[in-house]
Amino acid sequence: MIDFVFQNPCKIIFGKNALSHLGEEVLRYGRNVLLVYGGGHIKRMGLYQQVINILAEKQVQVWELGGIRPNPMLSRVYEGIELCRSNNIDLLLAVGGGSVIDTAKSIAAGVPYEGDVWDFHAGKAVPKTALPVGTVVTISAAGSEMSYSSVITKEEGMRKAGFNSLTNVPKFSILNPEYCYSLPPYQTACGVVDMLAHLMERYFTQVEHVMLTDQMLEACMRTVLIQGPIVMERPDDYHARAELMWAAALAHNTLLQTGRVGDWASHKLEHELSALYDIAHGAGLAIVFPAWMKYVLRHSPGKLAQFASQVMGVPENVGDEEAISLEGIRRLESFYRSLGMPIRLQDAGICSDRLEEMAARATSAGPVGFYYPLREADALAVYRLMVE
Amino acid sequence: MIDFVFQNPCKIIFGKNALSHLGEEVLRYGRNVLLVYGGGHIKRMGLYQQVINILAEKQVQVWELGGIRPNPMLSRVYEGIELCRSNNIDLLLAVGGGSVIDTAKSIAAGVPYEGDVWDFHAGKAVPKTALPVGTVVTISAAGSEMSYSSVITKEEGMRKAGFNSLTNVPKFSILNPEYCYSLPPYQTACGVVDMLAHLMERYFTQVEHVMLTDQMLEACMRTVLIQGPIVMERPDDYHARAELMWAAALAHNTLLQTGRVGDWASHKLEHELSALYDIAHGAGLAIVFPAWMKYVLRHSPGKLAQFASQVMGVPENVGDEEAISLEGIRRLESFYRSLGMPIRLQDAGICSDRLEEMAARATSAGPVGFYYPLREADALAVYRLMVE
Repeated sequence: MIDFVFQNPCKIIFGKNALSHLGEEVLRYGRNVLLVYGGGHIKRMGLYQQVINILAEKQVQVWELGGIRPNPMLSRVYEGIELCRSNNIDLLLAVGGGSVIDTAKSIAAGVPYEGDVWDFHAGKAVPKTALPVGTVVTISAAGSEMSYSSVITKEEGMRKAGFNSLTNVPKFSILNPEYCYSLPPYQTACGVVDMLAHLMERYFTQVEHVMLTDQMLEACMRTVLIQGPIVMERPDDYHARAELMWAAALAHNTLLQTGRVGDWASHKLEHELSALYDIAHGAGLAIVFPAWMKYVLRHSPGKLAQFASQVMGVPENVGDEEAISLEGIRRLESFYRSLGMPIRLQDAGICSDRLEEMAARATSAGPVGFYYPLREADALAVYRLMVE
Repeated sequence: MIDFVFQNPCKIIFGKNALSHLGEEVLRYGRNVLLVYGGGHIKRMGLYQQVINILAEKQVQVWELGGIRPNPMLSRVYEGIELCRSNNIDLLLAVGGGSVIDTAKSIAAGVPYEGDVWDFHAGKAVPKTALPVGTVVTISAAGSEMSYSSVITKEEGMRKAGFNSLTNVPKFSILNPEYCYSLPPYQTACGVVDMLAHLMERYFTQVEHVMLTDQMLEACMRTVLIQGPIVMERPDDYHARAELMWAAALAHNTLLQTGRVGDWASHKLEHELSALYDIAHGAGLAIVFPAWMKYVLRHSPGKLAQFASQVMGVPENVGDEEAISLEGIRRLESFYRSLGMPIRLQDAGICSDRLEEMAARATSAGPVGFYYPLREADALAVYRLMVE
């Protein structure tokens, strides 16, 4: 175990009655709120109107930034910063999933900053402070409701870049599993892949003597693997939705990376995919991870057999460590397929003519990944394993 | 899973170099510090002098409340409150284990309160605010370094009572596993029993559909069962000490009770033991838990078989659920014995002439325990199972 600092002050309000706490939580921060949200999902299920009513009842004045899309864009962040500055906004309230919350976080960091908010994403500056952000979560996926990170795409050059900061951690997050009932199956599936990916990125580490976090990560992954198919079958299964909603938040709140260093190469490779092809992040990850595993198995097999046996349930009698690992990867692919996810580029309608470009972009700042660092040639080899 | 609110803002600074952060952390709160500590352990290992030097270097003025003993007393809390009020203390710095930290927490809550601080412990009042508390942890056990709770004994009537409050959560905790190297084996063992007990209390619940927290609790318990014997064998095994130190904090920071209701009857029964006999809390728990399990097995066997198979590793072919459960209890007793812990009252030199009195006291405010509520007659039956 390596030295670490861990802190996550986010207040989680979880359950069927969670929204009843919204008014009092908002009033801790002020009466001028910028509501950030996406498309029609929250309006169709009536959540938008419920939130508006609660805020009106508490005499909170509301400005709106709607229409945030997956892979959210920097231009909308700029727009939000202007809205906050012109109207003395006290709190950003993000109602939606990762894209909406990430947009609110970047706005929150940008408002008190004199420079360009992209500086944070580009690693040129570190935020000292930010406006408070609260969230009402409508999809179990990115874990942004409790995380340090915000990922935004800059239209110019389609650069997708995230930054991590304590100032990004929301003050409170309201999690009601019922809000996920009406998600399209494809989005539910992308969310399952995304939370599993956050756990896998942290799991694959070269740090030794990490039994406690290894076992807790395995516990979370097994839960996601069991509960995921249940919600695909029964979208309104409260209990399974609840397990997944809490797992998604815990997968990305930094607790499960304490004392260890995760890999994160797969996220880098996927960011290039979704920046170029606007594919859903979860779908991209389902394509990247099996390819990444097959590649690193040749170079650094250590943890893959443990993953196969402890998480994917591969029995010991399958063969040697390589055989066990390959069976684990095969089961992971089957799991993704069972969710209706693509596992090869062609499945997502992506042809393989820009692999070199993506490999170059992914490694433009140097090798990516800590479990097994990928140079440009490695990254290209992984992208090629996504073609079949 | 039931609705819940979860928040734990404590900043954990973990590792060999953690103490180097102490100065900057203290200065966030001010320059007048009350140092709360126990006996000679921190002086013998040089930690006391290191802390004093760091504070002097930062021009922090230090008052001292030393000599806090296990099962800490209310009179020392009163003493601390007076010291804080007379000297405009900004921060309480607890250097020690659960007794020292709990004393600091109660002082911190008592200072701004006009009434008697015992009101909080007696459930007659709820603290609205408290002085900040920071900790430097020297034993992996109580988990007070991250917890909501403080347990104090009132000399008059030897009443031991805890209360839970967000105001009790320390602002920061410094965890260096090396500080545990020089603990007497008996204290190390008591600590292992204590953290395991915090996990077991949360594990035994009647709430269904709690797969994620069940699996995470099992992960933590398995880790403690494996790492505990390692530190008994090799007190200076950094990695095993580190796993236990982080497990102790996570066992009691409320994360692992999200969405469920734990039991806590065993803690109540043990509080009576240690109040009357001044036995170490961990040793008391090693006596109480097997007896409690044997008793509830007759009335509410559900979770005991799961505990036996998932945590104690009892194979399915041992027999029916009752046989599996009994084998799990037997293995738990063996584990306690291997740590040198008592598992019966006689092992701790306690004769059985006050069982009725303890049963009456433990249930004086009504039945105790949520997994299986114990009335006075039940509590007496459990105490009788501690005699052999």
